[in-house]
Amino acid sequence: MGIEESIKIYGAKIDKLLKDLIPPDKKDYLSEPIWHHMHTGGKRVRPALCLITCEALGGNPNEAIHFALAVETLHNMFLMHDDIEDGDTMRRDQPTVWVKYGTANAINAGDYLLACAYKSVLASPVSLERKLKLLQVLTLTYEKTVEGQALDINARAAEDFSVGQYMNMVELKTGYYLACGMVGGAIVAGVSDAVVENIWMLGKNMGPAFQIRDDLIDLTHGKGRGGIIGSDIKEGKASFLYSYALQVASEDDKKHLRVIMLKPRDETKDYDIKQALEIFKKYNAMEYAQDYADDLIQQAYKTIDHIPVEDKTIFKEIASFMAKRMS
Amino acid sequence: MGIEESIKIYGAKIDKLLKDLIPPDKKDYLSEPIWHHMHTGGKRVRPALCLITCEALGGNPNEAIHFALAVETLHNMFLMHDDIEDGDTMRRDQPTVWVKYGTANAINAGDYLLACAYKSVLASPVSLERKLKLLQVLTLTYEKTVEGQALDINARAAEDFSVGQYMNMVELKTGYYLACGMVGGAIVAGVSDAVVENIWMLGKNMGPAFQIRDDLIDLTHGKGRGGIIGSDIKEGKASFLYSYALQVASEDDKKHLRVIMLKPRDETKDYDIKQALEIFKKYNAMEYAQDYADDLIQQAYKTIDHIPVEDKTIFKEIASFMAKRMS
Repeated sequence: MGIEESIKIYGAKIDKLLKDLIPPDKKDYLSEPIWHHMHTGGKRVRPALCLITCEALGGNPNEAIHFALAVETLHNMFLMHDDIEDGDTMRRDQPTVWVKYGTANAINAGDYLLACAYKSVLASPVSLERKLKLLQVLTLTYEKTVEGQALDINARAAEDFSVGQYMNMVELKTGYYLACGMVGGAIVAGVSDAVVENIWMLGKNMGPAFQIRDDLIDLTHGKGRGGIIGSDIKEGKASFLYSYALQVASEDDKKHLRVIMLKPRDETKDYDIKQALEIFKKYNAMEYAQDYADDLIQQAYKTIDHIPVEDKTIFKEIASFMAKRMS
Repeated sequence: MGIEESIKIYGAKIDKLLKDLIPPDKKDYLSEPIWHHMHTGGKRVRPALCLITCEALGGNPNEAIHFALAVETLHNMFLMHDDIEDGDTMRRDQPTVWVKYGTANAINAGDYLLACAYKSVLASPVSLERKLKLLQVLTLTYEKTVEGQALDINARAAEDFSVGQYMNMVELKTGYYLACGMVGGAIVAGVSDAVVENIWMLGKNMGPAFQIRDDLIDLTHGKGRGGIIGSDIKEGKASFLYSYALQVASEDDKKHLRVIMLKPRDETKDYDIKQALEIFKKYNAMEYAQDYADDLIQQAYKTIDHIPVEDKTIFKEIASFMAKRMS
């Protein structure tokens, strides 16, 4: 069975179990906004990778299911809070939770998802030692992702935002997050700390590669927010492209770009986005971004070579699955 | 040493350790909003009660300090998110975090406080078994408080909001929360599950008593939000008084009250608040609320009688300390 098939099968299993963790028909003002959000997408790739990793490393995936569910609820908690923080009104062509149910309910429903994540890990059918390790992984991931988000929120239209700062931000914001399911699956399988360290490192390569790709998609296809191209520019969000342009563009172009980025969302017109795109193109920012992401993927393959397990197949499959989604 | 003295001493200790957990001078866009908030108040009563309970039950309070810190960061996380959810602009005569740093930073800094709570408990110098129990207590408290908040958010100006519904809401929102420090302290001291159950029960008596008192203070002295009287009415917040009035008032008075409660905050004038107060007074809602809170305190004393420990002094002292603060 190929990895895509495995993700599909495990993803469907997760979807079913999520409904046990958070019953969709409860009249508690939490289930409804949560399931409105859950239905806006989700192939449940992250939790599926948790189960696949566990199995490939000789563990029992049934013992990793609780952690896999936690990874998925954590993921959705972040999306729900991020949508408020970024002021995004649409997600996969549906209104975001704060738009449909109000900011108060969206903050609180996000908080609830995090409670569900911890509740799920606490119910894991594993030894006390492993359970504590899993709780540490969840907490570390949560903490680091929030730290990255703090940098992201405050980097908007920053005057001096370098590629280095961008990388620091996305390593925190996406690196732990991407690896945490795999790390959890590996812990349930009983691997050594050295293996765990290497999987974290894999996340630090793959996460930023994913984010750079996301930044690129926003400029080519849009992010499914009603087909809008350039919503990062509209938001004044510090993308890879923006950080690169600040490093290489002429003073005039930088100034022009910053004026566009600083405009309030409602005042950013199609013409502004076109102008920003022109500046990015002038300095080959798109090609540079794609190359940078490709390099990160290559680094990921090198990291895999260092993982101290005999059969590295699963990690290679996961990396190429992700790389494929990025091309 | 009396309990007030103990709270003072332990509170100061907590204040110092909080600065180790969250260094105030870190340039991470998290420490600054968090410490702006932390300085708006806090005698650190909740964590102090954790340490006092632990010691009184024969435990080593140094082993409970990590949990005590978690109780305090959880508390502040809720305040920070609640201020956004309630639209409160002032806390103890200072601008709230979302007003000073923006909603995005306030949501994210609240999220970070929760990460700190878990991080702190995970670092507790106790056995694996006890650590897991502490993590369960933290998670249960977090979950139930969020469930209560969901009811609170959506109860605003509800047409049929009974005293029973109010009690359910505040038991969830304040009961677990108030008890959790004591429960944690007791677990570190190694008490039986029966003792733990009784302390939870104590919270279910004292928490709502506290909340009813808070509702009353809002109508007499204001909540320190720039000296405003009746901010619950302004917000259309479902207080004990409101739920009681809906149960006993004439149809005309109920209708009148609901019109006032449904007015947007900015349109609620001093005259409206005066009118609502008149309705509450007409039905002796204040006296009823005070009696109700007093009854809950009496129930708390009965609960204490059932706690299966020989020396119940500490619980009686805590209850009368709280009752005193409520009179």
